[in-house]
Parts: sequence; C-alpha cells; structure tokens
Amino acid sequence: MELSVRNQLTGTVESIKEGGVMAEVVVKLDGGQEIVSVITVSSVQRLGLVVGKKVTALVKSTEVVLATS
Amino acid sequence: MELSVRNQLTGTVESIKEGGVMAEVVVKLDGGQEIVSVITVSSVQRLGLVVGKKVTALVKSTEVVLATS
Amino acid sequence: MELSVRNQLTGTVESIKEGGVMAEVVVKLDGGQEIVSVITVSSVQRLGLVVGKKVTALVKSTEVVLATS
Amino acid sequence: MELSVRNQLTGTVESIKEGGVMAEVVVKLDGGQEIVSVITVSSVQRLGLVVGKKVTALVKSTEVVLATS
Amino acid sequence: MELSVRNQLTGTVESIKEGGVMAEVVVKLDGGQEIVSVITVSSVQRLGLVVGKKVTALVKSTEVVLATS
Amino acid sequence: MELSVRNQLTGTVESIKEGGVMAEVVVKLDGGQEIVSVITVSSVQRLGLVVGKKVTALVKSTEVVLATS
Repeated sequence: MELSVRNQLTGTVESIKEGGVMAEVVVKLDGGQEIVSVITVSSVQRLGLVVGKKVTALVKSTEVVLATS
Repeated sequence: MELSVRNQLTGTVESIKEGGVMAEVVVKLDGGQEIVSVITVSSVQRLGLVVGKKVTALVKSTEVVLATS
Repeated sequence: MELSVRNQLTGTVESIKEGGVMAEVVVKLDGGQEIVSVITVSSVQRLGLVVGKKVTALVKSTEVVLATS
Repeated sequence: MELSVRNQLTGTVESIKEGGVMAEVVVKLDGGQEIVSVITVSSVQRLGLVVGKKVTALVKSTEVVLATS
Repeated sequence: MELSVRNQLTGTVESIKEGGVMAEVVVKLDGGQEIVSVITVSSVQRLGLVVGKKVTALVKSTEVVLATS
Repeated sequence: MELSVRNQLTGTVESIKEGGVMAEVVVKLDGGQEIVSVITVSSVQRLGLVVGKKVTALVKSTEVVLATS
C-alpha cells in the first residue's frame, strides 16, 4: 500500500498509556527525537503495539505547523 | 509561549514551493529525516521563511497515525 | 503495512483538479457515495493518480464529525 | 445550515463506547462500509446519539488521505 | 442539522483570496477577534461566500491547541 | 516563538474535565464566545492549566470549516 502522506517517520514504541477510549503512544524516532501519537485503544490492540515494536509515524502535511524562534 | 503540542521537531527549511494560496515547505529534521508542511503563502511571508532557516515543526498528537509493517 | 486508521473506504478516482500546490481529488466510493480529498500535487504525481484508478480513502477517526437532522 | 464540508456520508449508529472524556462511535454507512468517529462524550449526549439513530458523518477534504495498492 | 462540533463562532466574511484549488477566507468574529479558514474554491462558490456575508466558523475540539505565555 | 498559525484567540480557562488520557478544556474567549479544546491530560499538567488561567487557543486555518444559515 502506497500513501499520499509523505511524512513517514520511523521509530520504536517507547511507552503506551491507555485510557477508556484513547491511548497515548510515545515513539522514539530513529533520528533521536520523540513523537507522541494519540489513537484509539482498539487501534493499539489491532496493531499489536507493545514497547519496543518498530512503527512508522504518519502525519498529513496539512497538519504540520511551523514555528520560528 | 508554551504550547500544549508536545511534538516539536527541530530542523532547517530545505525548499519552499508557493502556489496561489498554499505553500509546500520541506524541512530537514535535525535527526536526518524530512517532514513536509503545507501552510498558507501569507504565513510563509509573515514568518520570513527562506531556505536554510531554522524552524520547528509542530504536530498535535491527535494527528499522528501509526503504522506497522 | 497495517495502519492505526480504521476508516478505509475503497473507491475509484472520478476527477482530479490541480492547482499550484494542492489538488482536489473526487473519489466515487464503492457504496455509491462520493468523498473529496485535498492532497498535494506532488502526492498525486507520486501515487500516479488518474481518473479510473482504484484508491482507498483513509480518515483518522478523530477527524470525523457527526451530525443529526 | 449549509456547510463548506462536502463530504457528508449518511448512515446509522452501530455502537457507542464511552470513556471518561472521549467516545468512539461506529457508523454503518448507507453504502455498506463502516466509519468510526471519535467525539467527546458531551457531544454524544448533546446529540442524543443511540444505537440505530440516523447520522451524517462529516469529514473536511483536507483530512482525507489517499492510498493505492 | 445539529453538529457534534461545539465550537461554532459567528462572524462576517472580511476577505476572500482564491488560488487554483484552495481559498483563504478571513472572518471577523462577533467578539472582535479574527479567524482564517482555508477551504476549497468550490466550497466558496457552493456557499456563495462574499465579503460581508454572515458565517459560522466551526472547529472540532480535537483541533484546538492551547498555549500559555 | 512565532507560529505559522494565524488563528490565535485569547481567553481564560473556564473548566477542565480530565479522563484517563484526554482532557476537555473550556475556554471563555475575550470576545465573549466559548471554545472547547481536547488535549492530553499530560499537556494540561505540563502547561499547569487551572480554572482562571489566561490561555491562547490556536487553530490551523485548514481546520476551520465555514457554514452559512
């Protein structure tokens, strides 16, 4: 499957915190930075996510805000 | 200013392509990966974005999809 | 590749309208309804999208608003 | 009320799972496919959503990702 | 039509800038602040938006970032 | 820090409802209208949000839907 989403950052699951419906998954990117993803608990289960698993974080480009300091 | 957005990835503007209303900005992250942002041309101008400028890419965690292979 | 996005609606590209940076792609879903996607022109080219091509429309569940009449 | 959102898919509520703040609502589209929506529990209550209720799922076109296989 | 989106800010169209596919619409909120919306040119036409027209700006709560200074 | 997000609405935290992972924060805008934000509980804690605190609500323009009546 090829996606229109060009932002595909690879990394490893660092932690998973589950609530009633949503889960917060912290991913350590291969470049060293961290990215947090909030998905449903049912998606965490469907993907079989566990700490240490290799994942790709996908972000649609229209969702990326830029900042300058 | 402190933001509720925890995903703050630092990098450098690699290219800017402007259309009539929207612009596509490619950012080389410090970790080596790339991220593309689509923002308005007026925001590109307001931030004074040019190739080589240091920027931070911000992504709300509810916008991050995960994939496994 | 397996995705955390559970909304995966299959269909066929009905029309593509390209601007300077963004493109509007109309997809006829297999169930008969239509869905419009706005992605970058570069993604249209990378995916080789043309009228008649089979595609899957993906939508993160946090992006789906509900309405009652 | 007329909306700028052109993606308006009609269907019926199939299930509702409530957490502390968010709820996951599964909608069976009239075309036969399913779509999942994550909204607040307070919105579920305000709309009076129950299994079997007719709803319309709204998705902004900039949120629709396309994939090819 | 009743919506799950609770953020419904009323205002008046102040300006419209059209590109090839997308349009940038500036809305003066009744409270005096401004909000910018990027929608498709086809939605601008379908809604018959013109400067001075009364509109409501809708924002899903999961899209609202908070900041402190 | 300067942001590409032009929609920056100032207000005051009116209420906070926390779930397992997500929190619903209601903000009274200075113009008198209300805006609801759904962010993670960990962001609520990191920002030190409490009722009465001054905050700015940020919304990317591509997330703003328009409606006419």
